[in-house]
Amino acid sequence: MLTLYSFGPGANSLKPTLALYEKGMEFNHRLLNPAKFEHHEDWFKAINPRGQVPALEDEGRIITESTVICEYLEDAHPTAVKLRPESHFDVAQMRVWTKWVDEYFCWCVSTIGWHRHVSKMVKDLSDEEFEKVVARIPVPEQQVKWRRAREGFPQDMLDEEMRKIAVSVKRLDDHLRDNEWLAGGVYSLADICNFAIANGMQHGFSELVNTDDTPGLVRWIEQINDRPAAKAMFAAVPREF
Amino acid sequence: MLTLYSFGPGANSLKPTLALYEKGMEFNHRLLNPAKFEHHEDWFKAINPRGQVPALEDEGRIITESTVICEYLEDAHPTAVKLRPESHFDVAQMRVWTKWVDEYFCWCVSTIGWHRHVSKMVKDLSDEEFEKVVARIPVPEQQVKWRRAREGFPQDMLDEEMRKIAVSVKRLDDHLRDNEWLAGGVYSLADICNFAIANGMQHGFSELVNTDDTPGLVRWIEQINDRPAAKAMFAAVPREF
Repeated sequence: MLTLYSFGPGANSLKPTLALYEKGMEFNHRLLNPAKFEHHEDWFKAINPRGQVPALEDEGRIITESTVICEYLEDAHPTAVKLRPESHFDVAQMRVWTKWVDEYFCWCVSTIGWHRHVSKMVKDLSDEEFEKVVARIPVPEQQVKWRRAREGFPQDMLDEEMRKIAVSVKRLDDHLRDNEWLAGGVYSLADICNFAIANGMQHGFSELVNTDDTPGLVRWIEQINDRPAAKAMFAAVPREF
Repeated sequence: MLTLYSFGPGANSLKPTLALYEKGMEFNHRLLNPAKFEHHEDWFKAINPRGQVPALEDEGRIITESTVICEYLEDAHPTAVKLRPESHFDVAQMRVWTKWVDEYFCWCVSTIGWHRHVSKMVKDLSDEEFEKVVARIPVPEQQVKWRRAREGFPQDMLDEEMRKIAVSVKRLDDHLRDNEWLAGGVYSLADICNFAIANGMQHGFSELVNTDDTPGLVRWIEQINDRPAAKAMFAAVPREF
């Protein structure tokens, strides 16, 4: 059986989790606790040397990178539920959206999330404890991010990320006002991968994501939350806040 | 017939160009001149509103994003030559490599390339001419990059990008010392997309990419250059320097 290593149904971990629920597949779900830095422990770095979730194990082989895992599930484990559009052109549009969330949308939201949440988590550590935590992080750019979270992100960086979030939210809403789904008129990995980042913004970024300013985006977030697979996922694995 | 809009066989434009040559497909090649800022002209922004090459036209529909175009060619125009590995697991590894070049490797090389080449190009413009050029760029982050190219990139940014280039070159070489190709033991889009950025570094970054320090990477660059498709491509469309 497949084993998914994840932080639960939020951010990049949500992508393959929701895909597996949509596909109706059974899988072992090994939840890691980010507050305990479990993803930087040696046992997990033996699975993913980058120390990042999600990771999928399939017959002893490991697939990493959330979007790659989603495409892999469609390739290797086809089910009655298809999470890619039928036409090749629409699949390309789906990939433009999954690429965009990975290269643009997720980063600006992530930095603000770190500023708000991870900063608090690491400020309580002693210098010695913090250095121990950082030393176990295998990716240098991630070490820099942890240090910034502790020292405080520069205000001009936070301002720039908020500008990008506003651009992102508008881009999604512009499309979703006129279209039920992001690509090819059907629910696809484009929706799942963007929902992974956008879900919750109606609370955490309510000044930007609300029924007055972004009615298309809010409708789409609610519509995905109402799907049986999403309900089953959130019921089985409550989102950590 | 397909029409490819590109700058020619370098950087992101090289990816679909080489894929088309490898697949032995006929196509119209519409070359744009970056020194004349043709990609920011209205006629091209009507094709790709982001003002970026490459873009592919297939029966009146436009596909953008170099890596997405390559996957689209495999999906929509299968030929005897396969540019994705056979097994689903190996395709996932291919996508980890194409994702990595798009999210990491291409950006550090690009900034140094801009510092060396684009800076010279825009420094000769008057303030008025430069502002006209910038006003036509649709992507705000690209406008910032053009301004930095004119003002000069901050030294700490250049240092950081050079650090990332060294990391990237080592990552490729570590793999290519022990493996003929990047994914699944076969020549694939992983190789084409990384070659698009790596080719030429044996000249432009010879302090990092050379037969002593990175024998695997140099062997792989030469091996791809020796392929009939690559020779035909470079003969048909000489790389601009």
